[in-house]
Amino acid sequence: MNEPIRVVRAPAQKPKPKDGELGFGQIFTDHMFVADFQDEKGWYDPRIEPYGSIALEPSAAVLHYAQAVFDGLKAFRGVDGKVRLFRPQKHVERLNLSARRMCIPPLDSGLALQSIVQLVGMERDWVPQTIGTSLYIRPTIIASEAFLGVRPAKSYIYFVILSPVGAYYPEGMAPVKIMVEEKYVRAVEGGLGGAKTGANYAASLMPGEEAKHDGFTQVLYLDGVHKKYIEEVGTMNIMVRIGDEVVTPPLGGTILPGVTRDSALVLMRRWGLKVSERQISIDDVVHAHKRGALKEVWGTGTAAVISPVGELVYKGERMVIHDGKIGSLTQRLYDAIVGIQYGQAPDPDGWTVEV
Amino acid sequence: MNEPIRVVRAPAQKPKPKDGELGFGQIFTDHMFVADFQDEKGWYDPRIEPYGSIALEPSAAVLHYAQAVFDGLKAFRGVDGKVRLFRPQKHVERLNLSARRMCIPPLDSGLALQSIVQLVGMERDWVPQTIGTSLYIRPTIIASEAFLGVRPAKSYIYFVILSPVGAYYPEGMAPVKIMVEEKYVRAVEGGLGGAKTGANYAASLMPGEEAKHDGFTQVLYLDGVHKKYIEEVGTMNIMVRIGDEVVTPPLGGTILPGVTRDSALVLMRRWGLKVSERQISIDDVVHAHKRGALKEVWGTGTAAVISPVGELVYKGERMVIHDGKIGSLTQRLYDAIVGIQYGQAPDPDGWTVEV
Repeated sequence: MNEPIRVVRAPAQKPKPKDGELGFGQIFTDHMFVADFQDEKGWYDPRIEPYGSIALEPSAAVLHYAQAVFDGLKAFRGVDGKVRLFRPQKHVERLNLSARRMCIPPLDSGLALQSIVQLVGMERDWVPQTIGTSLYIRPTIIASEAFLGVRPAKSYIYFVILSPVGAYYPEGMAPVKIMVEEKYVRAVEGGLGGAKTGANYAASLMPGEEAKHDGFTQVLYLDGVHKKYIEEVGTMNIMVRIGDEVVTPPLGGTILPGVTRDSALVLMRRWGLKVSERQISIDDVVHAHKRGALKEVWGTGTAAVISPVGELVYKGERMVIHDGKIGSLTQRLYDAIVGIQYGQAPDPDGWTVEV
Repeated sequence: MNEPIRVVRAPAQKPKPKDGELGFGQIFTDHMFVADFQDEKGWYDPRIEPYGSIALEPSAAVLHYAQAVFDGLKAFRGVDGKVRLFRPQKHVERLNLSARRMCIPPLDSGLALQSIVQLVGMERDWVPQTIGTSLYIRPTIIASEAFLGVRPAKSYIYFVILSPVGAYYPEGMAPVKIMVEEKYVRAVEGGLGGAKTGANYAASLMPGEEAKHDGFTQVLYLDGVHKKYIEEVGTMNIMVRIGDEVVTPPLGGTILPGVTRDSALVLMRRWGLKVSERQISIDDVVHAHKRGALKEVWGTGTAAVISPVGELVYKGERMVIHDGKIGSLTQRLYDAIVGIQYGQAPDPDGWTVEV
């Protein structure tokens, strides 16, 4: 697809919400990016057009067979007024990895990056000002072919939508309570757990509802084979600090390769910390807690950046971590990443892309 | 929802295809059934309207988190000219079971049944004539809420679409080649395998493509925990006849509760056969084949009714079953079910519903 990006401007601009009134994922900007794919043509007609509904045949594959992928990244308005994307290349790369796993034709990565940069550039007035707020970016590919047979579709739609979102912790970072899931499984070896695709989120709806009902923010999934090794939190990767070692589950196809996970690993290794990507059983976590070695637990993800875990409950047993307060490494990671995102700190790895 | 079903007729009728030209799932009739759900209203505005595209917000939950369920059943034009649905109540029941697993508000089962009966009644001229052909019915519920947060949606669309389909075996029933899948997993305990939801089909795309590339029609999935017990074929349940015993995997939440599976079990038990719903390992199947006891293998599903398996390949080893020909019980089951569907045989269990 070497076509130039067509631009059709919205006839009017919607009113922009105030920073203090922002929630998550319900308000969208004036424009969206769209491109189409047909087997015989490849990806074609890249365009920015007014944000609006998409007409799908009721037989469209995505509605029946969940052939779709997405990604999620953010644009931040820095303290210097500049708008920065955080690691957009890495997100585009992951979108294409997810696409391949789902038999979806990958995008040209240059075009995919451009779709995000150009759209955010056009909508830069939508990027909120306050530290903690951001413009959430959702690139998505859906199978649009009108055919009920079960096989990869022959037509797709790629779209990018933008949503200004509020601070994840409007009153400052706060530790969350997480239940270790014993009944439900998010993904298993040989399945789709490594791809950012609807199936994994569909599997998380029932456990999420049950956990919320019991007063937990999220669940921590165990591996689907042994129900033993910790995996991820559905919307976040997980990291535990035991003594002086930080442990996080390895990327083996069952967990999402988080971009914030990767950023945290890079930083901690640079800081000279002992960091291990290895399987760790929930029993090892419990034992570490019993002997006082479980120093910190946190989640990493685009939404919250770093989310301190104040309490883990496994088989009815409550493990309070670091007195339910934010640990020093948790805070250091949060500050470091947020500092780069808002242009408050140097960006030695070139993670940000100015718009 | 006690509202009457509104009917808006299509301004013109599409030309109907000839029976011999029918494929699967690409041609749709003139009308569809639609109803909406909102948290505060419940299901409302049931209606039959002209078949056409559905406008979804690009942030609609189904496009991102695969919150959707469907079912698949058929209407047959009998030798007596009457149009019959096959076990529609059972399909409606399963649609609601799938919905509950996916945190989707179930439909009133009376209304769901009526949606199918009334729509097929209106489109009865679309039911093809030839034995083997049918009108495929696809009831579907999709999460339509425009919200990017991960939780069950607050609005849904239920729709039913109809597609005249050709004979699955236009030249008579033919045995298929199936590969036993060692790498990919369709579903695991604690997952969504028992629900008819996109996630399971999404997981089957890559293994299906690889199997097709290697010359197989389908794959036979093993359980996700031990990679040992046979589970199902993705679009069919599986049954093996070893000596005088017919064995099929039990409904434990990892396989789809097939309606044809159930029909076959009812018939075989009535015929006095020894039928077991129990776990059976692929090694047991291999050993049975080695000692000459693996008499027949077949799949059951709405699409093909009964699909004889002529060859199973596991770890590169080829097992030819019944000389690659159709076994007597396979044929007897096919004839019995098809006989009821086309009004050629009595229907002692009231499986068919005349339209």
